[in-house]
Amino acid sequence: MNYRIIAYIVGWVLNLQAVFMVLPCITAVIYQEKEIFSFLISMAVCLALGLPFTVKKPQNKVFYTKDGCVAVALSWIALSLTGAVPFIISGSIPHPIDAIFETVSGFTTTGSSILTDVEALPYCMLFWRSFTHWIGGMGVLVFLLSLLPLAGGYHMNLMRAESPGPSVSKLVPKVQSTAKILYSIYFGMTVLQIILLLLGRVPLFDTLCITFGSAGTGGFGIKNNSMEDYSTYCQVVTTIFMIAFGVNFSAYYLILTKKFRQAFSIEEVRWYFGIIFAAIVIIAVNTRGMFSGIGTAVQQAAFQVGSIITTTGFSSTDFNAWPSLSKSILVLLMFIGACAGSTGGGIKVSRIVLLCKAASKELQLYLHPNAVKKIKMDHKTVPHEMLRSTNIFLSVYLVIFAVSVLIIAIDNYDLASSFTSVAATLNNIGPGLEIAGPMGNFSPFSYRSKCVLIFDMLAGRLEIFPLLLLFFRGTWKRF
Amino acid sequence: MNYRIIAYIVGWVLNLQAVFMVLPCITAVIYQEKEIFSFLISMAVCLALGLPFTVKKPQNKVFYTKDGCVAVALSWIALSLTGAVPFIISGSIPHPIDAIFETVSGFTTTGSSILTDVEALPYCMLFWRSFTHWIGGMGVLVFLLSLLPLAGGYHMNLMRAESPGPSVSKLVPKVQSTAKILYSIYFGMTVLQIILLLLGRVPLFDTLCITFGSAGTGGFGIKNNSMEDYSTYCQVVTTIFMIAFGVNFSAYYLILTKKFRQAFSIEEVRWYFGIIFAAIVIIAVNTRGMFSGIGTAVQQAAFQVGSIITTTGFSSTDFNAWPSLSKSILVLLMFIGACAGSTGGGIKVSRIVLLCKAASKELQLYLHPNAVKKIKMDHKTVPHEMLRSTNIFLSVYLVIFAVSVLIIAIDNYDLASSFTSVAATLNNIGPGLEIAGPMGNFSPFSYRSKCVLIFDMLAGRLEIFPLLLLFFRGTWKRF
Repeated sequence: MNYRIIAYIVGWVLNLQAVFMVLPCITAVIYQEKEIFSFLISMAVCLALGLPFTVKKPQNKVFYTKDGCVAVALSWIALSLTGAVPFIISGSIPHPIDAIFETVSGFTTTGSSILTDVEALPYCMLFWRSFTHWIGGMGVLVFLLSLLPLAGGYHMNLMRAESPGPSVSKLVPKVQSTAKILYSIYFGMTVLQIILLLLGRVPLFDTLCITFGSAGTGGFGIKNNSMEDYSTYCQVVTTIFMIAFGVNFSAYYLILTKKFRQAFSIEEVRWYFGIIFAAIVIIAVNTRGMFSGIGTAVQQAAFQVGSIITTTGFSSTDFNAWPSLSKSILVLLMFIGACAGSTGGGIKVSRIVLLCKAASKELQLYLHPNAVKKIKMDHKTVPHEMLRSTNIFLSVYLVIFAVSVLIIAIDNYDLASSFTSVAATLNNIGPGLEIAGPMGNFSPFSYRSKCVLIFDMLAGRLEIFPLLLLFFRGTWKRF
Repeated sequence: MNYRIIAYIVGWVLNLQAVFMVLPCITAVIYQEKEIFSFLISMAVCLALGLPFTVKKPQNKVFYTKDGCVAVALSWIALSLTGAVPFIISGSIPHPIDAIFETVSGFTTTGSSILTDVEALPYCMLFWRSFTHWIGGMGVLVFLLSLLPLAGGYHMNLMRAESPGPSVSKLVPKVQSTAKILYSIYFGMTVLQIILLLLGRVPLFDTLCITFGSAGTGGFGIKNNSMEDYSTYCQVVTTIFMIAFGVNFSAYYLILTKKFRQAFSIEEVRWYFGIIFAAIVIIAVNTRGMFSGIGTAVQQAAFQVGSIITTTGFSSTDFNAWPSLSKSILVLLMFIGACAGSTGGGIKVSRIVLLCKAASKELQLYLHPNAVKKIKMDHKTVPHEMLRSTNIFLSVYLVIFAVSVLIIAIDNYDLASSFTSVAATLNNIGPGLEIAGPMGNFSPFSYRSKCVLIFDMLAGRLEIFPLLLLFFRGTWKRF
């Protein structure tokens, strides 16, 4: 374990956090809010913790996968703890666990909230809350990689640990350039959504918060009923962008470099749109009686499907009141999740496709026991390693899921609430059903349950293994 | 595909079915019930269908895994269809789909019922219903193997397809002897339970039905409130035998051959008892307020835990009214299931242990990327093939689960009902929660849902792949 480099990286993450907090400060100045002081104090804390580790570059460049995972996990924990400080100091969210819950929910782009009255928060706090989505969406270490000229071979190990999905492909040979391209696309799409929303006469502040929420696939609303009161135009634009931010970003890179054919033949992306289309059709037919016409039903179905499969978590209607079939489809979409290499969470479409392909191969083996068949994805043979780790991911995922539900169940709410609150946090979605439904929030849960859900959100965002590594004694040995 | 041998095997299964029906006929004679005619007609049907295929032994002995799977799947379908005939003819269960549901539930040892008033059934029907559990528990083809001197290499392929669990170990080199030993142990334990129950002054008829239900880990009750009215002695005896029938039968063989040390060191069995113990302790503490004392709480917890983990499905209390934590534990136990090589269903303890070991190995790989680590079970290295097929089993299992829940959800009952009704049938348990809870039954579901649940019960009992093979075109090619 290379403690020196890990401290260096976490230090830089804390420095960056201080820089990020400049934006809510500006908000506070505009709206003349006294809570600016809580941000200034928090910035001082971040710099006081971060700067000492970053003044000198580390000499030892040895950096393995393990170190990458630990650096990423610790960075995210550092982000969450320091990010919660403004909420606590200002008294907006007085209890530390609640504040950490809200911050982790922000950075992991979950969007679950413990606030019963969002609208009571000052503007600068609302801004910070939504901005954490944008930071967490693409990942703070990817951002760091695009800025810092870190020499040595540890770029890839960091990126692999932070980026979602079973495989990370470098778009271009240099990792730093890949990170830059990813953030440029991310930034460009964000700006585009802001412009489109402004054209629909949405106030600037709302526009920014909605955009941060959809870009990061986070889903914190700034209204108590999330997106219900916004115009149809605004909802449609948001639907399109939520779905767009759930697409594998390599598709956009291929489009930017004019490789259209390659872009449109990515198998994961095709499946992703296929699933979305099927879900919208079934839900629209199933709920058509609840809306004024089939058009509204399709629009509402599309919003909810886009919001749940990309794990954003905005809601434009109370889907907890929908018929069971539609609710079951939404629960299923919670688990499927968005594409790998997007800002979305969940198990990821590519993992699901891989598992289905492996299953169909197994059935073929019953028919032709001696046939040698390779599993292919995008015309390339899937390496055995990736298949194995996908299978194992699923097992560990299910174990964490089951244990979490058991601990939450001690609170003695109904099964659907316990089950979907874990599904909503482990998959970084936000709202669940019943108590944790779109019109409810997570405040009724006990602090014990909240701690479990905080763990689930981090585990979901970092795809479990980096976080679990922290709990192994072997991880902390020097070599 | 060797159609000739498959027809020969299915034919023999039908002949056996006719023989099995002699027992309910005797019951009808004793209780002087006119429904004896429906059994006589059904026997004639079975023989008329079975005898023509069994008069001549097939010449071609070529028999692959595929043929074994198809033979087993078709045999089970034949058993289910002909087994339902008495219910339909006698008018006890008039609708064919209801009758097939009840019969499949019997043979697959699920124990889910569509009957609202079990006690209204004539004795011979009740007897037949419970006796299907005993037949299905150890498997009808294993029974056939122990009787028929089938030459050729197809014994093992048949047994592998019918026996539950990821691996089938031959206890002795000859498959026919293995089948005989298994059935002797099964028969011996059944007799022991009958004697013990009779000592507790349980009426003979009740004794037989309860024993068939626990031996096959089936769970059909002959009272409307299952086992609630029986004495504590009777409940305790049943608890012990339910748990005993969920143990891997090789453990009993090892005990019979005096290899005690080997018997007690089987990893799966240790885990099985560990899980049962932990579940009983937590549930007893959690529900202690609902019972007169901690002793009763432990006894009731033990009954329900034993009933659910072995997938029997008897209930001695309405666990739907228990606190969420206890209910969640029961739901979790539904999925874990009993030991491989027992009469119980579910995913099986050995598969869960294997998946956990694989996951822990994956984490070790993060720490020591170049270490070569083998996964061991009972001090033997687990072959890569078995691990892969266990992983794939889990994926297919989850897909079937999800699709089933979606179709059931069209009936628009609450999520917990849809979810647990599928869990209860796919794992061959019996009761779920809410509508399908221990005090409810499956009659409210639509016929569409019942068909899905029938498929799930068969898929659960045959461990999915043999049944799925029937739907592949490649299966039906001659070679």
